[in-house]
Amino acid sequence: MKNIKNLTSKKVLCSDQIDAISEQKAKTSKTFRPVVKGIEEILFEAFPLLDHGFIRVIDYMGDDQAVVQAARVSYGKGTRRVSEDRGLIRYLMRHRHSTPFEMCEIKLHVKLPIFVARQWIRHRTASINEYSARYSVLDKEFYIPNEKDLAVQSYSNKQGRGAILSKNQSIEALRMLKADAEKSYQTYEYLLNETNDGKVIDENKDGLARELARINLTLNTYTQWYWKTNLHNLMNFIHLRADEHAQYEIRVYAKTIAEIMKAWVPLTSEAFDSYRSGSVELSAEAFKIIKLMISGKKVNQKESGLSLREWNELMDIIS
Amino acid sequence: MKNIKNLTSKKVLCSDQIDAISEQKAKTSKTFRPVVKGIEEILFEAFPLLDHGFIRVIDYMGDDQAVVQAARVSYGKGTRRVSEDRGLIRYLMRHRHSTPFEMCEIKLHVKLPIFVARQWIRHRTASINEYSARYSVLDKEFYIPNEKDLAVQSYSNKQGRGAILSKNQSIEALRMLKADAEKSYQTYEYLLNETNDGKVIDENKDGLARELARINLTLNTYTQWYWKTNLHNLMNFIHLRADEHAQYEIRVYAKTIAEIMKAWVPLTSEAFDSYRSGSVELSAEAFKIIKLMISGKKVNQKESGLSLREWNELMDIIS
Amino acid sequence: MKNIKNLTSKKVLCSDQIDAISEQKAKTSKTFRPVVKGIEEILFEAFPLLDHGFIRVIDYMGDDQAVVQAARVSYGKGTRRVSEDRGLIRYLMRHRHSTPFEMCEIKLHVKLPIFVARQWIRHRTASINEYSARYSVLDKEFYIPNEKDLAVQSYSNKQGRGAILSKNQSIEALRMLKADAEKSYQTYEYLLNETNDGKVIDENKDGLARELARINLTLNTYTQWYWKTNLHNLMNFIHLRADEHAQYEIRVYAKTIAEIMKAWVPLTSEAFDSYRSGSVELSAEAFKIIKLMISGKKVNQKESGLSLREWNELMDIIS
Amino acid sequence: MKNIKNLTSKKVLCSDQIDAISEQKAKTSKTFRPVVKGIEEILFEAFPLLDHGFIRVIDYMGDDQAVVQAARVSYGKGTRRVSEDRGLIRYLMRHRHSTPFEMCEIKLHVKLPIFVARQWIRHRTASINEYSARYSVLDKEFYIPNEKDLAVQSYSNKQGRGAILSKNQSIEALRMLKADAEKSYQTYEYLLNETNDGKVIDENKDGLARELARINLTLNTYTQWYWKTNLHNLMNFIHLRADEHAQYEIRVYAKTIAEIMKAWVPLTSEAFDSYRSGSVELSAEAFKIIKLMISGKKVNQKESGLSLREWNELMDIIS
Repeated sequence: MKNIKNLTSKKVLCSDQIDAISEQKAKTSKTFRPVVKGIEEILFEAFPLLDHGFIRVIDYMGDDQAVVQAARVSYGKGTRRVSEDRGLIRYLMRHRHSTPFEMCEIKLHVKLPIFVARQWIRHRTASINEYSARYSVLDKEFYIPNEKDLAVQSYSNKQGRGAILSKNQSIEALRMLKADAEKSYQTYEYLLNETNDGKVIDENKDGLARELARINLTLNTYTQWYWKTNLHNLMNFIHLRADEHAQYEIRVYAKTIAEIMKAWVPLTSEAFDSYRSGSVELSAEAFKIIKLMISGKKVNQKESGLSLREWNELMDIIS
Repeated sequence: MKNIKNLTSKKVLCSDQIDAISEQKAKTSKTFRPVVKGIEEILFEAFPLLDHGFIRVIDYMGDDQAVVQAARVSYGKGTRRVSEDRGLIRYLMRHRHSTPFEMCEIKLHVKLPIFVARQWIRHRTASINEYSARYSVLDKEFYIPNEKDLAVQSYSNKQGRGAILSKNQSIEALRMLKADAEKSYQTYEYLLNETNDGKVIDENKDGLARELARINLTLNTYTQWYWKTNLHNLMNFIHLRADEHAQYEIRVYAKTIAEIMKAWVPLTSEAFDSYRSGSVELSAEAFKIIKLMISGKKVNQKESGLSLREWNELMDIIS
Repeated sequence: MKNIKNLTSKKVLCSDQIDAISEQKAKTSKTFRPVVKGIEEILFEAFPLLDHGFIRVIDYMGDDQAVVQAARVSYGKGTRRVSEDRGLIRYLMRHRHSTPFEMCEIKLHVKLPIFVARQWIRHRTASINEYSARYSVLDKEFYIPNEKDLAVQSYSNKQGRGAILSKNQSIEALRMLKADAEKSYQTYEYLLNETNDGKVIDENKDGLARELARINLTLNTYTQWYWKTNLHNLMNFIHLRADEHAQYEIRVYAKTIAEIMKAWVPLTSEAFDSYRSGSVELSAEAFKIIKLMISGKKVNQKESGLSLREWNELMDIIS
Repeated sequence: MKNIKNLTSKKVLCSDQIDAISEQKAKTSKTFRPVVKGIEEILFEAFPLLDHGFIRVIDYMGDDQAVVQAARVSYGKGTRRVSEDRGLIRYLMRHRHSTPFEMCEIKLHVKLPIFVARQWIRHRTASINEYSARYSVLDKEFYIPNEKDLAVQSYSNKQGRGAILSKNQSIEALRMLKADAEKSYQTYEYLLNETNDGKVIDENKDGLARELARINLTLNTYTQWYWKTNLHNLMNFIHLRADEHAQYEIRVYAKTIAEIMKAWVPLTSEAFDSYRSGSVELSAEAFKIIKLMISGKKVNQKESGLSLREWNELMDIIS
């Protein structure tokens, strides 16, 4: 909890937004529903990500108890002790009984670059309302990486990054990314005949339809959306996108969501770390080799029956 | 609101359940989340349905404002007046912009006959945890219709009901339904070697596995589940299942859910009545005829180009 | 392939159905689409299951190549050799890249007891058209287990089966299951005022609406449906339902579907056996212990940090 | 059929692709599955759209008969005449019985600008494999509108287009869109240290990771994907995206898909035109007014109870 609260900062919000949040947080209501203190504390707050992005928790439904309750399809709180709830949640996670985790729901407000949004939306079991660039003008905000995140194309992993770019190349790359994004945005304003802050540029001209002008923007332009999903699908998202094979820029979002999840449903989060994010899956063939190894036998790739690629992946895991 | 509260009754619950609910309702917590008074008042209460069924609201997320907020992807409460929120919600409903309605979520606890559960579950976009008859023994409760609901097979509607059965036939039918359900349940207990209230019948015998014994139960046996869905899918459910073509026994559930929805999101509920449950959809061909009629022309079926069936359906609607 | 064809039998079909199938199989058409010989050979044929059930393949779309093609988002057949396709499919399966498997689709016609249908339908990502007992009269067919499948309730597994029932209890149980199902069906016919083969019983009486009469039937009554899903979801179904924790009566369906899958997409089926149905998943904590064991260390439950239950599960796996 | 074949052109494909298609079309196989002549004729062919886009049908499953078959859950072809199939399909469409339409499936290969892809992907019930710009280099192709499609922002419709832009402004806008897209692509190549056709630019430099370089591209850059969905969801797509409120650039795709649908399932397509794309939906309140009008009464907005906006929408429809 501590560290997630430290992540909070209002730098990414404009003053209107800060006022609105203050107003929301000035007022509490009474409810019979389950309430999670850890998540109430961070409700509406913005966790900054990348250079202009953020995640805010807007609403939630249910808690660890709701998972337990659904698993038991029982009434009321029951008499079982917390230790038993923990055991039940771990059992459900271990055996992939996923439906009780669907009983919790969370809604986030996210600001993110368009190329990240394009990966994110591949998770289909969620509800989304995105800021519409057909209806409104997008802010002048683009993602420009940090120098340390500019990496060369990886040779071993065709969709990954290798070493960090040389200092000289980095400086030039960042300059170019910035210049192109700004140039495209400038054209965007010109075509709209309207500046970022709503002023008409030339009274004697018409503005191009917003839905057309926006096609000139670069993929690092920021967008925002409301994203709502259940706890089961949230874990799928984290599992895939916090993984080291995911692109760095979506990984930082997934990792922040993992922290939010920990504040919201600590028992589920702990079980997730054991059985999902930290788990190891071995093929039938690989597990036979593991058993031989446990029994003290030496095995080599040739005898193993595994392809070289699979053998290497296995050796990586057990080293 | 009044009438939905009057629907509440504790007759369908056992004393353990009543105690558990009392305990839950004795305690409120503070939350920053939106709270809906109308739904808080009925939280956990059981609305009785049919002879042994019920619906209880277990949890909810969001309100009419959450729909508006998602549509505006805006911060905070904004400055718009309620009248404008109502107009926006009606606009969204009229133009089938369904994603903002997905931003609200509700969780119900439902007790229902198995044959109703089989229709209900066809709505795939929902989360379900059902009481497991592989794990536990089902209660001795079957749905036996009221005399007034025993109808003969309809001739015009191959999947519907016609006139009410004669008094004599009704009495006999009810007697038979009851006798068969009881006989099947008696066998169920015998096979389990265990009575309904957990007593072993014959210490010298084994019980058949629960997952096998239950196959002897009749389709009017009651089951129960937690069912969670978003407001958009809830409206789809109500639209299809509160319709007069739906079977009476699921229709009573859908109508109660419509009442719950009214207590929860009154503006959305009103718009739903205007544009969805009360709306009329006309084919391209039928609408041409309507336009002729408005202009004062007489039209008959032959000239209309409609099939006799479609013509009759149209005449029904405008009469 | 051989064994799946041997499974075929026409005993479960009525003569009309056999004629219809013969007619369909008398006629072939030309297509530019990919065609899989192994599945064409079994198209429309009925694989008998349990006492009255069956599975028939009605249609399919795509093959192993379609998975490869989607993964490459490439044109045409390309120049790669089969060995590379196999490697790619295994890579996709190993790394849970599931979307290419969604590119293949299959449609089955299934006859199954209602209690099995109730488990099956929990797989939501599929399309279903079920025989409607509101519209038509259900056949007089119930599932009565074989003696060897009548097991007592398991003590270790609360939702499973233990030892086989004693001979005497078995005979009695089967007699009772049969008698109750027949009695319920007899009442069903009486209430409908119509026999199974369409004859009116008493001309002076009305029949109860079908949607009501059917509520008297027992859960082992057979129903049937068309079920269509993609290859990814088909594998999820097989993985969960062919598992030894699944109820025997659905497991036999899942295993037949696994055989059909082998005839349809042999490379995917092989990869599925390696990485999904035969794979082993270990928690972060369990894998640490495995690594200790490989390095030759002795570990016991107390030191392991695992609960007794998890420890026992792990010992089971590696033994 | 004629016109859809005339739409075909190979200009949008490169020579490798044309060869691959020729090879596929040189070979037919025999199948027992239903085959639709109209769609076989256009299989694999590219229908050009916008300046560089296309749609190709890659595979399909089922036909109008498959809809009928699912609705009847029947065996074989049955004895009913085509006129009855047409009537049944129209009945299903009229009463929104959507599940039989899910029994047909189609797979398309689509090339489209990224901003169109972002709208398209909002349809969640579909399978997608997209060309990966993390893995491969995107082609140097951007969407530049035709002069006649460059419209000013609409005043009445906040997310639509109004009149066409003046000649002078158009010329300038097109020049700017082109220049910015080319500049961004040039930077993209520079950062990759690799030209569009795979040549290294500077042997002494490293290339930036593809997943990073691509963030500089503009939203009108073309991407491509395999998109597979069932007939029910295909109709939802067409209904929403061929609508005049949809952005022109996605509308042209939806309209081509509607033509493909006509070639594939002509009876369903005809019913869709009657009851879905050409239908009129009236609110409860609006329909009361229509009934008054039919009975010869004069009604005005004030008395109508409709808001001015709804009244105007109604008058538009009946005029």
